[in-house]
Amino acid sequence: MSVATSGQGFIDITREAARFLERIGARDGALFLFIRHTSASLVVQENADPDVRTDLVTALDRLAPSDAGWVHDTEGPDDMPAHIKSMLNGVSLHIPVTDGKIALGTWQGIYVAEHRARPHHREVVLQFLGHVEA
Amino acid sequence: MSVATSGQGFIDITREAARFLERIGARDGALFLFIRHTSASLVVQENADPDVRTDLVTALDRLAPSDAGWVHDTEGPDDMPAHIKSMLNGVSLHIPVTDGKIALGTWQGIYVAEHRARPHHREVVLQFLGHVEA
Amino acid sequence: MSVATSGQGFIDITREAARFLERIGARDGALFLFIRHTSASLVVQENADPDVRTDLVTALDRLAPSDAGWVHDTEGPDDMPAHIKSMLNGVSLHIPVTDGKIALGTWQGIYVAEHRARPHHREVVLQFLGHVEA
Repeated sequence: MSVATSGQGFIDITREAARFLERIGARDGALFLFIRHTSASLVVQENADPDVRTDLVTALDRLAPSDAGWVHDTEGPDDMPAHIKSMLNGVSLHIPVTDGKIALGTWQGIYVAEHRARPHHREVVLQFLGHVEA
Repeated sequence: MSVATSGQGFIDITREAARFLERIGARDGALFLFIRHTSASLVVQENADPDVRTDLVTALDRLAPSDAGWVHDTEGPDDMPAHIKSMLNGVSLHIPVTDGKIALGTWQGIYVAEHRARPHHREVVLQFLGHVEA
Repeated sequence: MSVATSGQGFIDITREAARFLERIGARDGALFLFIRHTSASLVVQENADPDVRTDLVTALDRLAPSDAGWVHDTEGPDDMPAHIKSMLNGVSLHIPVTDGKIALGTWQGIYVAEHRARPHHREVVLQFLGHVEA
């Protein structure tokens, strides 16, 4: 699936993931997600207070500041920090699926974390391994 | 399974994971672990010197300090740092299983990392994908 | 498979992963990678400009400096930072496989990140879950 982002921030894809499982008739197993980029990442995080996502963006900016004298700077000051953030967060994760439902915790949502300043289209590969009902 | 934590720190769940594989008759495949929380995480780390875990806690505290002016602070000063640490470490991982045994390296153990100051009960979902022997 | 490293840095194992899939006749599914160490890690990152990997090493050094007063220091000043970097990056990941090919993004490569100063041999377990063609 393709996810449109609007600059740095977290985009909730929980509903899209649930729809995918429904469409393929998934029952019990696990959902595997992979993002095909090196300046965005996949994160399972709090879905209640949006302030949490604001602070997560701030935290990542502090861990990978743009003005830190990076060697790789030809693609703009936000590019190398984006690679670092993508490395720290990771590009693959899995979530258990029980009876066709994603077994997330009460406060968990699935997010694409965009680390570049400008909008992008991010490709996320969803796969299900387990029992499927026709 | 439910893991009781006693404030910030690492809880070894390697034995519980091994027992799970034994109970279901797992042979060859992989063990998938997922923690259903956003202020705790799953980590594979050194199981020999406990000082390593002490330093890992210190390192996480330095990467996500509690007095860093977070917007989200209604749940206490340890809450937002806990979300950041959970994002950095991640909530899902897999480990290969060979002939029913977890194929961890010699010095590796599986840990639930608790990032909140107070004790919690943390739910970890264990799944096995592969060959099972009745 | 065993990966020879020559001190801190990123070693590309994308080709070896592709050969593994070919050898076993993998068709559609996912490739699972696990590194059996606590001072090295697995990373999917940019495969174009080598400066990116240089900066990733620098970034990790800043996040886990060697002179930060770690308790665990018996194995040398690079050991505890290596554990921290391994925790942040992670030791397991998966990548989708389509029609026998690793479905990496255009700019993605698979890397073993060595965090120790001296050369090591790192064991990486490759597994494929999905459809195999004899």
